[in-house]
Amino acid sequence: MVPHLVTALTGPLLDLEKRMLDKTTEIERWFRMAWNDHAPPFYSSVDVRNAGFKLAPVDTNLFPGGFNNLSPDMLPLAIQAAMSAIEKICPEARSMVLVPERHTRNTFYLSNVARLAAILKQTGLDIRLGSVSDEITEPTRFDLPDGQSIVLEPLKRYGNRVGVDGLQPCAVLLNNDLSAGVPAILENIKDQIVLPPLHAGWATRRKSIHFAEYDKVVDSFCAMLGIDPWLINPYFTQRSQLNFHERVGEDALAEAVSEVLAKTRAKYAEYGITEQPYVVVKADAGTYGMGIMTVKDPEEVLALNRKQRNKMSVIKEGLQVSDVIIQEGVHTFESIDDAVAEPVVYMIDRYVVGGFYRVHTGRGRDENLNSPGMHFVPLAFETPCNTPDCSDRPDAAVNRFYAYGVIGRLAALAASQELDATIPVEKAA
Amino acid sequence: MVPHLVTALTGPLLDLEKRMLDKTTEIERWFRMAWNDHAPPFYSSVDVRNAGFKLAPVDTNLFPGGFNNLSPDMLPLAIQAAMSAIEKICPEARSMVLVPERHTRNTFYLSNVARLAAILKQTGLDIRLGSVSDEITEPTRFDLPDGQSIVLEPLKRYGNRVGVDGLQPCAVLLNNDLSAGVPAILENIKDQIVLPPLHAGWATRRKSIHFAEYDKVVDSFCAMLGIDPWLINPYFTQRSQLNFHERVGEDALAEAVSEVLAKTRAKYAEYGITEQPYVVVKADAGTYGMGIMTVKDPEEVLALNRKQRNKMSVIKEGLQVSDVIIQEGVHTFESIDDAVAEPVVYMIDRYVVGGFYRVHTGRGRDENLNSPGMHFVPLAFETPCNTPDCSDRPDAAVNRFYAYGVIGRLAALAASQELDATIPVEKAA
Repeated sequence: MVPHLVTALTGPLLDLEKRMLDKTTEIERWFRMAWNDHAPPFYSSVDVRNAGFKLAPVDTNLFPGGFNNLSPDMLPLAIQAAMSAIEKICPEARSMVLVPERHTRNTFYLSNVARLAAILKQTGLDIRLGSVSDEITEPTRFDLPDGQSIVLEPLKRYGNRVGVDGLQPCAVLLNNDLSAGVPAILENIKDQIVLPPLHAGWATRRKSIHFAEYDKVVDSFCAMLGIDPWLINPYFTQRSQLNFHERVGEDALAEAVSEVLAKTRAKYAEYGITEQPYVVVKADAGTYGMGIMTVKDPEEVLALNRKQRNKMSVIKEGLQVSDVIIQEGVHTFESIDDAVAEPVVYMIDRYVVGGFYRVHTGRGRDENLNSPGMHFVPLAFETPCNTPDCSDRPDAAVNRFYAYGVIGRLAALAASQELDATIPVEKAA
Repeated sequence: MVPHLVTALTGPLLDLEKRMLDKTTEIERWFRMAWNDHAPPFYSSVDVRNAGFKLAPVDTNLFPGGFNNLSPDMLPLAIQAAMSAIEKICPEARSMVLVPERHTRNTFYLSNVARLAAILKQTGLDIRLGSVSDEITEPTRFDLPDGQSIVLEPLKRYGNRVGVDGLQPCAVLLNNDLSAGVPAILENIKDQIVLPPLHAGWATRRKSIHFAEYDKVVDSFCAMLGIDPWLINPYFTQRSQLNFHERVGEDALAEAVSEVLAKTRAKYAEYGITEQPYVVVKADAGTYGMGIMTVKDPEEVLALNRKQRNKMSVIKEGLQVSDVIIQEGVHTFESIDDAVAEPVVYMIDRYVVGGFYRVHTGRGRDENLNSPGMHFVPLAFETPCNTPDCSDRPDAAVNRFYAYGVIGRLAALAASQELDATIPVEKAA
């Protein structure tokens, strides 16, 4: 049984969702036109926060894990979307190599890889898994909790291309976010499609660039919809050249926090919102919930203790943090059985293919749910996000999911524009 | 609760389905390549017969009704497929006019129109219904059994284009099979997309041409799969210039029946099938189950009584029948609670979006289920047709549906080739 979903809704969000439902036709046409100008990412997942008065993305992942968290009922949608994507990218392909993350001991992650491979297989592709992990020197079988197993093979270089033993596919799909930089084996690939492009990896990607593109997307979308863009867009700013260890740039960070809090406070006043504003400081190239902190007062960043400074200075793969994004915090008002719930929306190509909630019992609603050691319970969305029922109440689950699907797609569109805007110079030539 | 589905399976079909399941990746790639060469019909439905030893299409509809029979759970798939189709055809369109059948008193049919309009609306199109019925002279509201209502408006001509009052859409979608010929208002349309093309209507379409293309499709498919094409393809031949009223051509028809029976009998012997072979004689341009009869012996067509001859001579819209297709009958071995069940597979663009069973209690398994006055019970497929479970038994429902989806798509591909092959000369220039 799927637990009942409780959302503490207040005025404006109902208005916002109602407006989305009233304008589904215009919204869908708007997306159709937008995707005409920008190729969608091959796949993406977007962390959405529902504050009751505001609905916004807080993170956009271009190498989504967690496909195994989606309801099996959504698989047909994922397969159909993947068929549509493959048909555009490599219509004649017989096979594809999927490059997973290095961590081979996380069976939960490997279950995601198995699910992804199953989806892609059903589009008519033989899928082989080419690992960049040093530990994989020969085909190695991994048993999964559900009784299935997968075989990881070493990724091999063939001249300007990569593959696995005996196979140089027309396309390589990365499910590795390249946090540690681009592995040498993936550099200077020619005559082969790499999805997403290497510059979508966290070695080069920046949240601040993503959210700057999201600003543009949202301004255009909200002009069409006739709503205040703030209702779906968190304020943010960016600061560089910090050094948390050596306390360099603390004043600049405090000033940035102050600036975002002031703007947020003004909006709260405008809408009569009595919650306490807060900001989230995140590593601009961060992921995995590392290098992230919640701040309610600028003074807090001037008084970080050693442990907090250590926590902020290092992210995945041991990289140092010098650039941060300071983003308006969006309260999580959704809860399930008293546990805080954060929705994650999954897309393949331009299509929303499902989602799930990260449900966590031990945290407050202004805390980050995707943090190290966090043991969330995934709760698959019951229904897909493309069948709103306009005759039903806006807070009916099917309609809530439609709104989530809209926000997810706006963030995916921003990612698409971000990737177009950040093509490396040698490639753009 | 969905009733339990009973299928009286014997040897060869299990083999066939097993082979399809073993080769899903190859099959899906084969379709991907095939659709690369032939644009899929905008939509289609295919009547499939499951004889236990044989699985084959018996009719392919390019103006499918009955979308209201599909499970609501399949709607997201239909919406996603329609999005993909619209994006290719008229990516910038804001609206579309749907042209329904003339019969406005069939609320069941009008429910299909409402469902279709709802699917298309969700792709970002304003849908208006432009009727060619003489009865519709102004916007007219029709209430539907489920409490919804639809408004039919008169289709209007605007120079080289058509539309409804105040709207000339970029594309017009026909859900009218043009059995009575192409209405003058739809002739010589320019600068506007008509879907499907007018020559897909029964004014010009011929079953014999469709099944000739199906022969080619199946030969190529079965060469890839390594199976006898007969297992998924009924024998057929065609006869012209008959006149049932005046008993012209009876000998030629008897000879054709004899020919198809003999070939079928040989295959039955080859596979050790003990059923009695039969053929179905159908008007080559017929539809709606009219102008159709089941024959087990050539003598039968030499001894038709007046009532039988009358029944064969006239089809929908009072058209005379002079050309017939003589097709190997495929027994219906599927049953639900002792009632005969015939599956119908629905497609939008290249995607299977669901299906249902026509369930009829009062008929034998070699009789035509889609006949006038037939009151079938629609039973929606429980699961979509694109998620086979290779670890499950081939006769598990999810796997049966995969096989149905393959047969449906082969017929849709044949229809696509048929439409390419029958483009009117003035258009082909």
